[in-house]
Amino acid sequence: MVSDSGLSPHGVVPPLVTPLDEHGEVDRRSLERLVSYQLDAGVDGVFVGGSSGEIALLDTAQRRMAVEVTTSTVAGAVPVLVGAVDTGTRRVIEHARQAARLGADAVVVTAPFYIQPHPAEIVAHFRYVREAVDVPVVAYDIPSAVGARLTPEIVTELADAKTVVALKDSSGDLASFREILRRTDLPTLSGSELFADIAIELGAAGLVPGLGNVDPHGYVRLHRAVRDGDIAAARAEQDRLARLFRIVSVADRGRIGFTAGALGAFKAALALRGVIDCPATNLPLSPLSPAETDAIAAVLNDQGL
Amino acid sequence: MVSDSGLSPHGVVPPLVTPLDEHGEVDRRSLERLVSYQLDAGVDGVFVGGSSGEIALLDTAQRRMAVEVTTSTVAGAVPVLVGAVDTGTRRVIEHARQAARLGADAVVVTAPFYIQPHPAEIVAHFRYVREAVDVPVVAYDIPSAVGARLTPEIVTELADAKTVVALKDSSGDLASFREILRRTDLPTLSGSELFADIAIELGAAGLVPGLGNVDPHGYVRLHRAVRDGDIAAARAEQDRLARLFRIVSVADRGRIGFTAGALGAFKAALALRGVIDCPATNLPLSPLSPAETDAIAAVLNDQGL
Amino acid sequence: MVSDSGLSPHGVVPPLVTPLDEHGEVDRRSLERLVSYQLDAGVDGVFVGGSSGEIALLDTAQRRMAVEVTTSTVAGAVPVLVGAVDTGTRRVIEHARQAARLGADAVVVTAPFYIQPHPAEIVAHFRYVREAVDVPVVAYDIPSAVGARLTPEIVTELADAKTVVALKDSSGDLASFREILRRTDLPTLSGSELFADIAIELGAAGLVPGLGNVDPHGYVRLHRAVRDGDIAAARAEQDRLARLFRIVSVADRGRIGFTAGALGAFKAALALRGVIDCPATNLPLSPLSPAETDAIAAVLNDQGL
Amino acid sequence: MVSDSGLSPHGVVPPLVTPLDEHGEVDRRSLERLVSYQLDAGVDGVFVGGSSGEIALLDTAQRRMAVEVTTSTVAGAVPVLVGAVDTGTRRVIEHARQAARLGADAVVVTAPFYIQPHPAEIVAHFRYVREAVDVPVVAYDIPSAVGARLTPEIVTELADAKTVVALKDSSGDLASFREILRRTDLPTLSGSELFADIAIELGAAGLVPGLGNVDPHGYVRLHRAVRDGDIAAARAEQDRLARLFRIVSVADRGRIGFTAGALGAFKAALALRGVIDCPATNLPLSPLSPAETDAIAAVLNDQGL
Repeated sequence: MVSDSGLSPHGVVPPLVTPLDEHGEVDRRSLERLVSYQLDAGVDGVFVGGSSGEIALLDTAQRRMAVEVTTSTVAGAVPVLVGAVDTGTRRVIEHARQAARLGADAVVVTAPFYIQPHPAEIVAHFRYVREAVDVPVVAYDIPSAVGARLTPEIVTELADAKTVVALKDSSGDLASFREILRRTDLPTLSGSELFADIAIELGAAGLVPGLGNVDPHGYVRLHRAVRDGDIAAARAEQDRLARLFRIVSVADRGRIGFTAGALGAFKAALALRGVIDCPATNLPLSPLSPAETDAIAAVLNDQGL
Repeated sequence: MVSDSGLSPHGVVPPLVTPLDEHGEVDRRSLERLVSYQLDAGVDGVFVGGSSGEIALLDTAQRRMAVEVTTSTVAGAVPVLVGAVDTGTRRVIEHARQAARLGADAVVVTAPFYIQPHPAEIVAHFRYVREAVDVPVVAYDIPSAVGARLTPEIVTELADAKTVVALKDSSGDLASFREILRRTDLPTLSGSELFADIAIELGAAGLVPGLGNVDPHGYVRLHRAVRDGDIAAARAEQDRLARLFRIVSVADRGRIGFTAGALGAFKAALALRGVIDCPATNLPLSPLSPAETDAIAAVLNDQGL
Repeated sequence: MVSDSGLSPHGVVPPLVTPLDEHGEVDRRSLERLVSYQLDAGVDGVFVGGSSGEIALLDTAQRRMAVEVTTSTVAGAVPVLVGAVDTGTRRVIEHARQAARLGADAVVVTAPFYIQPHPAEIVAHFRYVREAVDVPVVAYDIPSAVGARLTPEIVTELADAKTVVALKDSSGDLASFREILRRTDLPTLSGSELFADIAIELGAAGLVPGLGNVDPHGYVRLHRAVRDGDIAAARAEQDRLARLFRIVSVADRGRIGFTAGALGAFKAALALRGVIDCPATNLPLSPLSPAETDAIAAVLNDQGL
Repeated sequence: MVSDSGLSPHGVVPPLVTPLDEHGEVDRRSLERLVSYQLDAGVDGVFVGGSSGEIALLDTAQRRMAVEVTTSTVAGAVPVLVGAVDTGTRRVIEHARQAARLGADAVVVTAPFYIQPHPAEIVAHFRYVREAVDVPVVAYDIPSAVGARLTPEIVTELADAKTVVALKDSSGDLASFREILRRTDLPTLSGSELFADIAIELGAAGLVPGLGNVDPHGYVRLHRAVRDGDIAAARAEQDRLARLFRIVSVADRGRIGFTAGALGAFKAALALRGVIDCPATNLPLSPLSPAETDAIAAVLNDQGL
């Protein structure tokens, strides 16, 4: 049922946050501005409906609007990857079909979660999804969210069978990442904010850093520096981005969860920079305090943003 | 927006499996027979759309049909609890509203998952859901599926604010369970197959054992024995049920995940006993082998079923 | 090489703390008083050199003195169990032989740690130790300290081969504890402060609660109540002890580790009760603050101690 | 009490295995040959008594002999680092003093284990050890063995106070490793077999790879290639070493633990290469089977060793 799209994700592909207004609804104009901001920075694609996009917290209407606004604003300029994230195969297929209808160039799919799957069941999950939808599938390894791992063995099997066209790696496990690069020719996108330089040097096809929402220009420069063989420039850019990444650590973990602290920081920074109107995150995440927002502003200022 | 229903779940409330036919669709007649089998055994309620019901694997239509068939078959004889299980607050509210429309007497809600919430965000999640729906909420502690815990502190806060009317405890952590019983008057349902006797002795209001699908009569006898002060009879029944519970361990973990092994065993046993037609589990779970099914039949036989 | 001692540990067997003086040396007179206090309360044995005894923090001379003072003070009145706790087999054998020379009635041995053993290697570890020493071996399941578990399968194999004469269970996992009671006749000692009543009801031979240092009379009463069939009295005693156990939670976890908070509380309570002179714990544990000690005094006072 | 040694560990510093004979005793002549083999390969130091040296499994006499043979064979040619690995501060000080007497140039110390320490207690542990011994201290981050982490915050505090002269990082966590390199000037030794090239490129002072026992020449070449700016050569060498590292995965995990599989493979390879006489590991580790040894020989052969 699948046409061969020829899609091969590469370069800088930021996982877009989903701007909300004061009432908690998707803020269309802020999202349009965010997409334009990314395109102006020279990104090679965008990923809507990922973890940075609060996919787990968006209801049906919000998911739909986030995808519609993104695809219509991108208007074919770069590929749009869309998360089809849910617990089980049939649920993922529902999301993937809708994403295809809304113009996704590929859907991004995790291992099943809530259940405790065997590796063979994870492979079967991707195969069933692939057979059911007419859009390429990108495998999404994010054990912090789903528990299970996409091991080098699983990814190799998916690559050999051409079940997926790429891997988005948010595992934080560079050892398995490097092993996958050795074993397969599958294009691999690293979700790491802090090892973007190393990932590209080791052969990754691209980058999907959450911090790319805030500073796409930095990741675009870093990517080009590695591509051009200027490792010293890449290291310096990576060091600067590591300092900027401290915004995700300002939240008081005695009051706010990890997700709220990180996604809240990305949104606060985007609001401070004037890209989006409102820094609100979705229910039930706690908002950052004014003092925490000030601390984020100070980090931005220190990094010249 | 909530009326005080007065619902106070208690007794034996099996978490129903969702029978599927050979094509993977919900098997209405098997589900009707399963519900009738439970009612005939004297259960005090049923729980549809829980982990044992493969809630994570059912698509939108399957979820709806499972609830409709259950509520129409129960026809008011006992309370029907319905799982409103999803990753985030707004998504849970969507499910809970539908459950209320379909006749649920209460909705059963877990902590948010996929994200990594702070305890305060977990409390807020339940509060938002409660405010949004016109049906009582039961808190569902199942860290093996969702990661986060409903600690005694969280449960006490939910109980004191009357945000939830009961707790379903599938944590496997008897220490926190006992602490909750000491701290609150909240009715508490234990999901443990193996400590059902102890849970009731310690003051639990009821039992929600997955194995209750297969042998509701056993859990009803156990519950009555404790209630009547016949601890020796309760111990003997619990020991028998522990031997029966070995059916969840026959699957080869080298080939099948934990979820498939346990839920597949419940369905295989129900098919062997003639209650449902087909033992199939949903995608992407691996089916049990004929040899594994034979091993389950042998355990049933040993226990006189 | 082993004589059959006929030792069968049972009843209340507190895991003694190791009192230190202001200079960090073992305080002989305080330890003598502690032992006498326990014997006066009617305990059925003592365990020296366990986790509550800070075994991991005692140097060679301290370990030796703690055992010598204990065995000489007990003077045969009850069995003395001695921890032979170390990372590997040969190291454990060194400790076990010294314990035997110093008069131990049994040695208490964990799974190997620091390394990552296979279950078959854990079984071999106990067998090698047993063959090398002329004193009975008690298996000590304490995954919070050593990582590995003594599963029901491992314990059954050790029991069937008569490699060990008893199990001390500090796993916190009542499910495996109950499974072991079903599978074997091995005497089993529960290390749980909070499920002492249930453990004895389910068939445990005895109790090794760290809190027994502070209130041995309570655990002796609880044990006798269960033995005499007075479950209501046992429940009430257990509830009282649960309130007393809150002393282990007063320490500020932002400043003090779990071990220092719990062992420091036991020692602070014993000093407040006049049993030992000085509440110091060993290097590198942080001491409790005066405010934390006051909070412990308040809990003691509330429980009438 | 500490003299400033000026020691600054760097370059390739293999963590020596401890060869045993058929009776399980330290094989002096094999250890001498192993040391000579390393020196001939051009290593910049050796580390005796680390995890690769089965430190957790060596008894008192074995520990002493391993250190004595190593220091006497090295005879001052390169620095000798000696593990002072034990659960608590006082125990570590005993080992560290003995190591100093036996000629250690530095002692290598982990966080306390068996207990559950607070970060402040970990820092105190290193400070107490440092004050008690007249030899420099190297901090050893090995959470797979000890549970606790030496976080960037802890390491920065130890570096700023000059409590330790270097860090040996066996955490497998490149993110914290890189953060430490950014925050401090502390010489850092990476224990990674698979990211040796990246570690040196990012600024590590040296390498302590267990696989260096088997192929020190490879790691010496890799280190020189990075130092000389020949990244392509370093990548090729790292890829070759990654293929060689597959020897640690040949053991059947259904029968042998992780430690036995890895350390057994190093010893089997050294025996196959004629460096040591006997591949035996210490009690209670399971030996490799003949088929597993053949598989290791095949890997060596494939890599031209």
